[in-house]
Amino acid sequence: MARHQVPGLLDRLGTLWREFVAPQGGSALAHLDPDLPDEQLLHLREQMQACLDARGGDVSARTRAAALGHVYLGLSELGRRRFLTLMATEFSPDRDVVDRAIAELEAADDAEREQAAFHVYQALQPPRINLLKQFNILPDGVKFLVDMRAELLKFRSGHPELDGLERDLMEILTGWFDIGFLELRRITWDTSPAAVLEKIISYEAVHEIRSWDDLKNRLDSDRRLYGFFHPRMPDEPLIFVQVALLNGIADNVHDLLDVNAPVGDPALADTAVFYSISNAQKGLSGISFGNFLIKKVVSTLSAEFPSLKAFATLSPLPGFRVWLEQQVEKDGDDLLLPAETKAVTALVRRKGNGARPPALGLFGRLLSAELWQSDKDTAEVMRPILLRLATIYLVSARRFPEKGNVPVAIDPVAHFHLSNGARIERLNWMGDRSERGIRQSAGLMVNYLYRLQDIEKNHEGYSSRGTAALSSALKGWLKG
Amino acid sequence: MARHQVPGLLDRLGTLWREFVAPQGGSALAHLDPDLPDEQLLHLREQMQACLDARGGDVSARTRAAALGHVYLGLSELGRRRFLTLMATEFSPDRDVVDRAIAELEAADDAEREQAAFHVYQALQPPRINLLKQFNILPDGVKFLVDMRAELLKFRSGHPELDGLERDLMEILTGWFDIGFLELRRITWDTSPAAVLEKIISYEAVHEIRSWDDLKNRLDSDRRLYGFFHPRMPDEPLIFVQVALLNGIADNVHDLLDVNAPVGDPALADTAVFYSISNAQKGLSGISFGNFLIKKVVSTLSAEFPSLKAFATLSPLPGFRVWLEQQVEKDGDDLLLPAETKAVTALVRRKGNGARPPALGLFGRLLSAELWQSDKDTAEVMRPILLRLATIYLVSARRFPEKGNVPVAIDPVAHFHLSNGARIERLNWMGDRSERGIRQSAGLMVNYLYRLQDIEKNHEGYSSRGTAALSSALKGWLKG
Amino acid sequence: MARHQVPGLLDRLGTLWREFVAPQGGSALAHLDPDLPDEQLLHLREQMQACLDARGGDVSARTRAAALGHVYLGLSELGRRRFLTLMATEFSPDRDVVDRAIAELEAADDAEREQAAFHVYQALQPPRINLLKQFNILPDGVKFLVDMRAELLKFRSGHPELDGLERDLMEILTGWFDIGFLELRRITWDTSPAAVLEKIISYEAVHEIRSWDDLKNRLDSDRRLYGFFHPRMPDEPLIFVQVALLNGIADNVHDLLDVNAPVGDPALADTAVFYSISNAQKGLSGISFGNFLIKKVVSTLSAEFPSLKAFATLSPLPGFRVWLEQQVEKDGDDLLLPAETKAVTALVRRKGNGARPPALGLFGRLLSAELWQSDKDTAEVMRPILLRLATIYLVSARRFPEKGNVPVAIDPVAHFHLSNGARIERLNWMGDRSERGIRQSAGLMVNYLYRLQDIEKNHEGYSSRGTAALSSALKGWLKG
Amino acid sequence: MARHQVPGLLDRLGTLWREFVAPQGGSALAHLDPDLPDEQLLHLREQMQACLDARGGDVSARTRAAALGHVYLGLSELGRRRFLTLMATEFSPDRDVVDRAIAELEAADDAEREQAAFHVYQALQPPRINLLKQFNILPDGVKFLVDMRAELLKFRSGHPELDGLERDLMEILTGWFDIGFLELRRITWDTSPAAVLEKIISYEAVHEIRSWDDLKNRLDSDRRLYGFFHPRMPDEPLIFVQVALLNGIADNVHDLLDVNAPVGDPALADTAVFYSISNAQKGLSGISFGNFLIKKVVSTLSAEFPSLKAFATLSPLPGFRVWLEQQVEKDGDDLLLPAETKAVTALVRRKGNGARPPALGLFGRLLSAELWQSDKDTAEVMRPILLRLATIYLVSARRFPEKGNVPVAIDPVAHFHLSNGARIERLNWMGDRSERGIRQSAGLMVNYLYRLQDIEKNHEGYSSRGTAALSSALKGWLKG
Repeated sequence: MARHQVPGLLDRLGTLWREFVAPQGGSALAHLDPDLPDEQLLHLREQMQACLDARGGDVSARTRAAALGHVYLGLSELGRRRFLTLMATEFSPDRDVVDRAIAELEAADDAEREQAAFHVYQALQPPRINLLKQFNILPDGVKFLVDMRAELLKFRSGHPELDGLERDLMEILTGWFDIGFLELRRITWDTSPAAVLEKIISYEAVHEIRSWDDLKNRLDSDRRLYGFFHPRMPDEPLIFVQVALLNGIADNVHDLLDVNAPVGDPALADTAVFYSISNAQKGLSGISFGNFLIKKVVSTLSAEFPSLKAFATLSPLPGFRVWLEQQVEKDGDDLLLPAETKAVTALVRRKGNGARPPALGLFGRLLSAELWQSDKDTAEVMRPILLRLATIYLVSARRFPEKGNVPVAIDPVAHFHLSNGARIERLNWMGDRSERGIRQSAGLMVNYLYRLQDIEKNHEGYSSRGTAALSSALKGWLKG
Repeated sequence: MARHQVPGLLDRLGTLWREFVAPQGGSALAHLDPDLPDEQLLHLREQMQACLDARGGDVSARTRAAALGHVYLGLSELGRRRFLTLMATEFSPDRDVVDRAIAELEAADDAEREQAAFHVYQALQPPRINLLKQFNILPDGVKFLVDMRAELLKFRSGHPELDGLERDLMEILTGWFDIGFLELRRITWDTSPAAVLEKIISYEAVHEIRSWDDLKNRLDSDRRLYGFFHPRMPDEPLIFVQVALLNGIADNVHDLLDVNAPVGDPALADTAVFYSISNAQKGLSGISFGNFLIKKVVSTLSAEFPSLKAFATLSPLPGFRVWLEQQVEKDGDDLLLPAETKAVTALVRRKGNGARPPALGLFGRLLSAELWQSDKDTAEVMRPILLRLATIYLVSARRFPEKGNVPVAIDPVAHFHLSNGARIERLNWMGDRSERGIRQSAGLMVNYLYRLQDIEKNHEGYSSRGTAALSSALKGWLKG
Repeated sequence: MARHQVPGLLDRLGTLWREFVAPQGGSALAHLDPDLPDEQLLHLREQMQACLDARGGDVSARTRAAALGHVYLGLSELGRRRFLTLMATEFSPDRDVVDRAIAELEAADDAEREQAAFHVYQALQPPRINLLKQFNILPDGVKFLVDMRAELLKFRSGHPELDGLERDLMEILTGWFDIGFLELRRITWDTSPAAVLEKIISYEAVHEIRSWDDLKNRLDSDRRLYGFFHPRMPDEPLIFVQVALLNGIADNVHDLLDVNAPVGDPALADTAVFYSISNAQKGLSGISFGNFLIKKVVSTLSAEFPSLKAFATLSPLPGFRVWLEQQVEKDGDDLLLPAETKAVTALVRRKGNGARPPALGLFGRLLSAELWQSDKDTAEVMRPILLRLATIYLVSARRFPEKGNVPVAIDPVAHFHLSNGARIERLNWMGDRSERGIRQSAGLMVNYLYRLQDIEKNHEGYSSRGTAALSSALKGWLKG
Repeated sequence: MARHQVPGLLDRLGTLWREFVAPQGGSALAHLDPDLPDEQLLHLREQMQACLDARGGDVSARTRAAALGHVYLGLSELGRRRFLTLMATEFSPDRDVVDRAIAELEAADDAEREQAAFHVYQALQPPRINLLKQFNILPDGVKFLVDMRAELLKFRSGHPELDGLERDLMEILTGWFDIGFLELRRITWDTSPAAVLEKIISYEAVHEIRSWDDLKNRLDSDRRLYGFFHPRMPDEPLIFVQVALLNGIADNVHDLLDVNAPVGDPALADTAVFYSISNAQKGLSGISFGNFLIKKVVSTLSAEFPSLKAFATLSPLPGFRVWLEQQVEKDGDDLLLPAETKAVTALVRRKGNGARPPALGLFGRLLSAELWQSDKDTAEVMRPILLRLATIYLVSARRFPEKGNVPVAIDPVAHFHLSNGARIERLNWMGDRSERGIRQSAGLMVNYLYRLQDIEKNHEGYSSRGTAALSSALKGWLKG
């Protein structure tokens, strides 16, 4: 639909352009080839240098930066790669200056040392970081840099020369998106503009929003949707969470999303279930807001609904199935406890399929046949086995990240909630029967429980030793 | 979708109820049967009387009124009829008081007369009008009365005992919806909440909005949508108009609504085309805003876009086809000019269908065969005939309304724009090829032109004599 | 300060004028003499008639009305009198039409009667009421009519020909200022614009606000100021109330207004004291909001501060001193109880002033000497007497208003709070030592107590029999 | 006025404290001695370290930071000094880590160098900078750091150990107050809250605002007041400018501020005169906004008032008198041109005061006698001399700042406007007759003219060579 490509940033830049940039020779920039051929790179380099030198004063420098931003938005993908590479390679710290500053630091006596160290620090700051910051003058300057980093993350693989630029952007964005600058906003059908709702639909990453009606249902009076926003990106959620106000902890997502279910009275609910958290900005990957979002929403809901007693999630185990299949491949039926082996064998015999054990063992065959979703007998046998193995997965499937010697959960969702100080509360059989639910989580869903008084202790246990806090029911599963 | 029946008014009333009404014995009211059987009517009557007597003071009276409103919203259709009939019949002016006041007026001398007349005036004000006004205390009290009138209009046919109540409501609403209280608001994708946009989709009466994408397209940067709102009904448009900013006057609606058409630059447009005006509130029928809406939008757009030179509509002729078929039935081929008869006859002969003239004449047969939509030859012959007859329709198809002896256009859209002082500018062949466009308007659309300097003169001509202002091109058609 | 006469209404009308009025011959109106000499009255009359006839359509009529409003604002006081008299006398109901309608009503059978009665009702509506309503199109149209009524109230004494017009305005304003349309707004130092605060300073009628610092003190964190506003008069409070959040009921106004007193913690307060209520618009006199204001504020404060247990006023007795002096004149020392007489006599003897009783008795002499304010001995004797007589004043000083046979309190403040269902709780000696406090209330102040559960009962007692609800302590005073 | 010390930050922190901090052992911090004795410093150091280590997770770290901020606000001046010194000295870069990183950098080959350089950069970042950033979580965290820097600037003289901390704060604030984050807001009487207006009154640094009436006058319809605001400090202007919309460039400030002068019609003005620019936040000194403010306001006013042709200032010469007296001390009457000497001598003779030349020469005596303000004859002689010398002062009184070899104007106001690319347009005799005006600027005022097309050229001339752009009239004065 061609009509929807609303000019947006470019459009609003238009005014700025007419006001400031065009009269100051920006027009030369306006006619660049979208692929930025070599002969034009030189011209671009000069303009960048003029920005850094603040030629014509600060205001002129900023309008030049706006013009450069304008240029960037008009480039092809190839052109953008070349633009970013130019910034990354031509505006690095000056080696001679750095070496000289280090020499001075090494020669400094104690009284001079701090000043000398500061000079090294200054020498090491790449000039391009100032250029990047100047783009903030663009009408949507913050979003501009967020999107630039998203592209950089796409481009950088195999291009280590872009690493420094990406690091600089990350540093800038980490500062700008400090939690202290963000606003928690409730998204509602009655007050939120369509432009924001449209983005919620598009950014939802856990349980796809299939239509405006589906969204409206998720904004009904017994549901809440909160997001963090940056004041300079008022129409762009950074991260958002969907909450259901219920009686008791939800054990499957299908009931939650059923548009025909009756609407509950939120004033009577005792439980808030966080059933979806989505990061919305690729360009902010690595900058974490989820922790603050959950706690801020817990605090907001507690104030509004004094009757709420429990705050829990309903979450997938996205890495479980892959992990489980690796275990089956490695250990076959040795994964099972004796009683489980007996039940599996009896079932296979009863169903009469196969004379001798297959390569991956009987359990592996049952798992891949996926009859446990539909066949009641099979489900009865598989249910306790899968729940037990999923508990093991959450509690002990760990990896060691590059830095540090504390193990972290393989499951990314588990890692997120355990880092935040939640407890693993309950596993739910057939909590998510969608194609993705079966494929990733073997249909299971897990409830993580947030108890304010335990959060700090749980966090410390996990972040210092990798230990997961566990409900006593789940401890039972571990014992088999 | 059961989940969408959001409580709305009832929900918000809840708070009020808990605060004020329930403690004051409102609970008795809360348990009425939705059909309002006779024995409960008496109780209701008492509560209404208590409201009017302001028992317990003004605040108590108002909370009682809120309770009554609450009751009304919980009633079945039958119950509501009975509720309205109760108000209409039991709280009329007191006949004795009226007669006494008239007697005093007739006995009054000149000095006393004004005072005496005022007493008659007071005596004639039905008590129910005060009851109706007290409902304004409801959180959505204004909408409450608007919707009550919509129901009353539905119920009243065949029930003259409801006429007085409807008249009272009309009087109240006419005062409350005075143009001076209304706000013109621009509806946009980026700022308007989904709850308002959803209503635009549902209330659009001219060219159906088929989806959220269709709506987004109508809110693009070269389109405008304005509505009047009442401050006490902030989410409810009263009337709204859709405008396209174009170069030249649009001659068909299909190009206007094409989501694949390129987006124009509104700053370069020379023409604003009003292509849809919809009244949104059934309960406000008979209270006219369209006139003010068009002129306010013309004034707003002129200020924002100095390049706009012309303001025109692209409108249906919803009564044309019916009128035309009546003419055909009456006069058959006598409707045609000699040259037209010749062309029609030649066409029929060429196409070879039919040996002798059918009952309604050749033209009638062509018209009903509807080949003129698809067959190029037929269209060529029919085009000038239909355009000429449509011009006649607009200019001379008139009726005499109940009161007054000035004729008004049969076509309701023509009547609206001619009353507003517009000129009939152009007729467009195949301007609306939709099923409804063919069925009602024979596929034609008309442009009415608004020129500020002529509006008053055109209005006077039409409102005093029924004369339509006409472009010279259309005057040509009249001559054939 | 000439610079402060900001154009305001006229200024904003300017735009309207340029847009609509001037092009339509409004310019003729623009050059009227501010005194409206006779020869111009005729022209004005014509324009008014044109408005009523809606010549040129509704929009034209409204722009004509705006032009007339413009004219009015530019007139001298004499001119305005003549303008209003013109409207009042020339646009009354048509006597012949009324008589004819009455004749038809009297001839009507039962089936026709309702319709005929309605015709009489219509005939009795003066045309000028429509003209008045049309002024609502002015940018500050609502304020325009409010101010017009204020002037009318000033002009009308001795001019019964203006009564009808004033009645019409009252009817319009009563409808427009229905409580359902008003917004309760909290006024604060941090959020309210100076233009609103300036009006609070100017409209305060009970305890003068002496400076911006005084106002800031009254808006501190342990104080509240709420007002009702009309959406079309957003900068104009209609009525406002000042509240102190305290521990215990305040017994004098000096501590309340002391800018050097420590700020309390409102979250710990158990009592909200309403220490000033001011009506702000002369043009709305007779339309009562105070009742709703107090109850709405009680409800708002209760929700915000659950620790609040009591809601009381600290109020003057503005009619007490006058009443008391009338009693003294009439009854002299017979007003006193025997023990009081003894104490007074002893005091006079001790102080040695005067050999024989003065004309008005000893008590009258003490009262007018006003030594009771400063002399400790005198105060000791006078305190119980004045408190007892003030109780009698509140409880039994009654008058009979024109209509109705229920007595009402002579004291206007007592009448207001007793009508609202409050109880007389306590009398405070030297509650207001200001010059006005002494002159009007003999330095006393009274606390009226609002208890939600008693309001309706108290109201009924007072409005049906004139009985005041009284605390047991005060009942004690009555007994002496 | 004790009542006005509204808790503000502490108050709002209260909620945060109750929510987060207190339950996590923050209470220990709550009972520190305001002077921070040594034994408590250790405890504080531990809490700071816990923040940096993010013990208990990010959210806990932030609540700890909030607690520390809370502590800081409760400290005495001595305590604050000790708090800041603790941060400055205990959380500097680790010398060993830095040395090791440098050793690695020196050993790195080309491929490793960028990474190694980044490690040095990281090692040089003082940990305290992270602590400072964490204070952003405070409800008024941005203002907190701004005020902390204001205090640091006060404390640091003679305390070089605070330099590093001050530099870190400057770095953080420079980033946070990037022009791209600031909002231009118009301050008006009708819309701006008293809390903001009160700050305008208090922060005005050029022409004192003497009362609320004086302020109201400066906000009248022919005046404008604009300021920059940070979204996290909505009630705190950062810098603001006052503008008069006039016909012709104002030549004195007394007419501008006269509350009795007639109000002009801004739509007819041809000149915008910037007559006062004030920085409002001491803690942001060294971060420059004025340049952007002026250009943004020029652009805003141009769009609103197309009739504006010139943008100029009316500015003091605050360093002129001091400079002039230094010249007189040095050169005595040699400062004068022959014709001027003649005129001065004749005047002195005529007035008959003094037989022989005084120490500082005749001109010096005249200057210090200050008769030129009141005596017409003296003024006539002094006027051309002072204007000529003031021109010389503006054009050639230069100093060389620490860094760089480009001379800058001694006069700070001249330096500001010349840096911004303005031209010196006109000198005004007796433009400011206030005590300060006479004492600092010898009563002169200067108009700097902003012409968009010359700004860049003027800026370059001044910033590269110290050359001032000059009107031809002033060039004439230079020639004498």
